[in-house]
Amino acid sequence: MMLCDIGNTSYHFFDGVRGYKKSVKSFNPVSMRERVYYISVNSHAKKILSKLENWIDLAPFLDYSKYYPTMGIDRVVACETIQNGVIIDAGSAITVDVVRDGLFMGGFIYPGVRAMHECYKNISNALDYPFNYECDLDIMPKNSQDAISYGFLKPLYMEVMRHDAEIYLTGGDAPKLHKIFSHAKVDEYLLFRGMQKIVHRLQNQ
Amino acid sequence: MMLCDIGNTSYHFFDGVRGYKKSVKSFNPVSMRERVYYISVNSHAKKILSKLENWIDLAPFLDYSKYYPTMGIDRVVACETIQNGVIIDAGSAITVDVVRDGLFMGGFIYPGVRAMHECYKNISNALDYPFNYECDLDIMPKNSQDAISYGFLKPLYMEVMRHDAEIYLTGGDAPKLHKIFSHAKVDEYLLFRGMQKIVHRLQNQ
Repeated sequence: MMLCDIGNTSYHFFDGVRGYKKSVKSFNPVSMRERVYYISVNSHAKKILSKLENWIDLAPFLDYSKYYPTMGIDRVVACETIQNGVIIDAGSAITVDVVRDGLFMGGFIYPGVRAMHECYKNISNALDYPFNYECDLDIMPKNSQDAISYGFLKPLYMEVMRHDAEIYLTGGDAPKLHKIFSHAKVDEYLLFRGMQKIVHRLQNQ
Repeated sequence: MMLCDIGNTSYHFFDGVRGYKKSVKSFNPVSMRERVYYISVNSHAKKILSKLENWIDLAPFLDYSKYYPTMGIDRVVACETIQNGVIIDAGSAITVDVVRDGLFMGGFIYPGVRAMHECYKNISNALDYPFNYECDLDIMPKNSQDAISYGFLKPLYMEVMRHDAEIYLTGGDAPKLHKIFSHAKVDEYLLFRGMQKIVHRLQNQ
């Protein structure tokens, strides 16, 4: 079964074992001959794919009543995979969603690693530092690189930890954030497990 | 006594009573005939002003030993004005600095309101919302505007509040942040009070 999660920058494929990415800019979905089950937060891609018979949008098969109408489908699917915990999906944006007893308790959106780096850089060249993931989050910083790194990471850390729940880390920047959420379960394919669940439910109807 | 705090976007003047701003792009410092005591994080402006006799840089008269070499002079001066508390300076960046018994305990840099809004917008048009400062920070959001607003404000709020100290709010976006830090002391001219202290010290030497 071929699955695909389409974001603002890439088509992320998963064949059940391995995953790979194709750029939104260069990938032509017509080149795929097999059946692909997909979710997409990218409205442009969605429009193209709606005309291709072998691309099946999973959106209509999701129960949005537990969520809210404008919530990204990737967040909804991720939440469907767990019963309890905090899901951090670290992509272009970092979404943080809380699930308790299978119910969505709410979530927030924080800028992704790259976006935040650009953000600091755009304010001033004096803030153009790579983030230091080894920065000690227990001590208020006394140097510029850590002042930025702490500003980005510590607030996120505090807000996630206060839920005192299992942490699931996914998305392209999960390995980076794993340095600060060292006890988190890193699952590159969390979203795809949610998609697999939905497809199996469909196939067994 | 005319004071001026120069940032990346504007010259901020204070005559002891009133303050006003001039854009870095259009203001010509040669047009000022009176003596101006200034601080600047803007290296380009600093270069121009070093050639003008009536513009007096306060940087050499500051004791940086309590701080760190690349720390913005505006932050240093703000810290010099208080004995205990957390200073939030909400400009292009939001700097948060902690002072205890007159000693700098460290600080961090968070993106400013405008920079953060641009940051979300650049990630996706779907995240292009104005921040909702009335957003309930006690409840995990269940709508897009609050998911962004909470992502920006709640982490900042948590990180400031944990110091359990008096909060001093300054900078152009202080009125906005006052909505979430309702007990903070808003002091538009905090920095200038620090500058006044330094000038008085100089004059009495």
